Amino acid sequence: MRTYLDCIPCFFGQALRAARIATNDEKQIKRLLDEVGMMLQEISLESTPPEIGRLIYGKVREITGNPDPYREIKRESTEKGLALYDSLREKIKRSGDGLLTAIRISIAGNVIDLGVNREFDIEQEMEEVAQKEFAICDYEAFKSCLDKTEEILFIGDNAGESVFDRILIEQLKKPVIYVVRETPVINDVTHEDAIQAGLDQVATILSSGTNAPGTVLETCSAEFIELLNSSEFVISKGQGNYEGLSNEKVRIFFLLKAKCPIIANDIGVTVDDIILKGINI
Amino acid sequence: MRTYLDCIPCFFGQALRAARIATNDEKQIKRLLDEVGMMLQEISLESTPPEIGRLIYGKVREITGNPDPYREIKRESTEKGLALYDSLREKIKRSGDGLLTAIRISIAGNVIDLGVNREFDIEQEMEEVAQKEFAICDYEAFKSCLDKTEEILFIGDNAGESVFDRILIEQLKKPVIYVVRETPVINDVTHEDAIQAGLDQVATILSSGTNAPGTVLETCSAEFIELLNSSEFVISKGQGNYEGLSNEKVRIFFLLKAKCPIIANDIGVTVDDIILKGINI
Repeated sequence: MRTYLDCIPCFFGQALRAARIATNDEKQIKRLLDEVGMMLQEISLESTPPEIGRLIYGKVREITGNPDPYREIKRESTEKGLALYDSLREKIKRSGDGLLTAIRISIAGNVIDLGVNREFDIEQEMEEVAQKEFAICDYEAFKSCLDKTEEILFIGDNAGESVFDRILIEQLKKPVIYVVRETPVINDVTHEDAIQAGLDQVATILSSGTNAPGTVLETCSAEFIELLNSSEFVISKGQGNYEGLSNEKVRIFFLLKAKCPIIANDIGVTVDDIILKGINI
Repeated sequence: MRTYLDCIPCFFGQALRAARIATNDEKQIKRLLDEVGMMLQEISLESTPPEIGRLIYGKVREITGNPDPYREIKRESTEKGLALYDSLREKIKRSGDGLLTAIRISIAGNVIDLGVNREFDIEQEMEEVAQKEFAICDYEAFKSCLDKTEEILFIGDNAGESVFDRILIEQLKKPVIYVVRETPVINDVTHEDAIQAGLDQVATILSSGTNAPGTVLETCSAEFIELLNSSEFVISKGQGNYEGLSNEKVRIFFLLKAKCPIIANDIGVTVDDIILKGINI
């Protein structure tokens, strides 16, 4: 997905929120915003938003000197997710369609996104998404492709959310490679976060190589790109990965909650909609 | 009022909204945002927000080549206000306290503010503000000062809103100087807009000399500044005038609806609150 003009004020809002988590020094934060302002002229609207996010969050780390402002928040999110793990597994056992219930749980987990400016309550979100109609639901194609594939490439999004991805992975009943970011950026899931969430018990964890808040292929490792291009079945979680991958020629199923009006509009849905959308299927 | 860090993302949002009203050319709008980005490092948080707004809306005019993007919108707002004029005058006649009802009407009119990112319905606003409790209500001091003064300096805010200011001026029953912006900026009221609203029938219209979206004294005429400093009774409408005048040493009654969380916080109220607040009283 390209960057829209409306993303520009939002980049400054994101930079401000991240900087405030990293430091209390108002002068440092102003300097960060000044530098983001100066970067703007170098930024093309043809870039994807996570390409620009990568530059901005890099500046946050550089100027505040804090390499991982969201570290503690991520740890707490994963703990909260783990506290719900057993009851959600029970819920799946009681449900008529365990796979679809697990997809809903994984999408509900996508609300744990600190790049967007929203409050959330994960337990309330679980209740809501359990009932909610999908705005786009390529579930039949998803099941049919799942039957035929031998392996699944599952691109994770946020820490905490990954606990709910683990619940979905358990229902896929095929070998899964779970993809994480190489370095901390916002609250995106890294190898360390995935281990905390227990992903190593259900999948092989692999870094995409990127330090962007989304799958920006130009910044990914050759190994990941090759794997992506040879995959028959890819699950991509969340907005950042959608933004980076929506124009690729691989078969991908995007699972996400549309939290931003620009992304919702790009997909053709409205804010708060939940989506299971396949491309190249 | 100083500028807060949170104002910075909002400046970009304001620039984007204004530019979209002025032009459909995406490249021109991107260039405008780039230039606002470059200006950022020159901007001090010690400035008031309308000082910065003045620079930004100046850039909008310069880059889009459109000296008055809101011209038609302002004309329509004033027409809508005028369409309600007779019924609101009737309402005042029927009310127990015509002055307080007129203050409420004037504050309700303050919702016609295109600098903030909000939808509004002026008739619904009239209903709501008629019922709403004031978060700050220095009405007794207002009446007492009004009794003693020989003349009122009334600093207008937005076009359309000025029709409702006219209704209040009619209830003040003292000579009024109605202050407008020197040149068009957002939908702020100018001499031309005030004439369309009929302010010349109830007041002497005077330009403050500014081209800022608020009363930024450094950009006002010597005549206006002298008048302000010698005034015993000043009414200031809206957020932009509050931001410019909140630290002055003159007796001013601020009438506004808090539409922005930063201004609401500065005043010590919450968003959507209505305020009749006197300083130096």
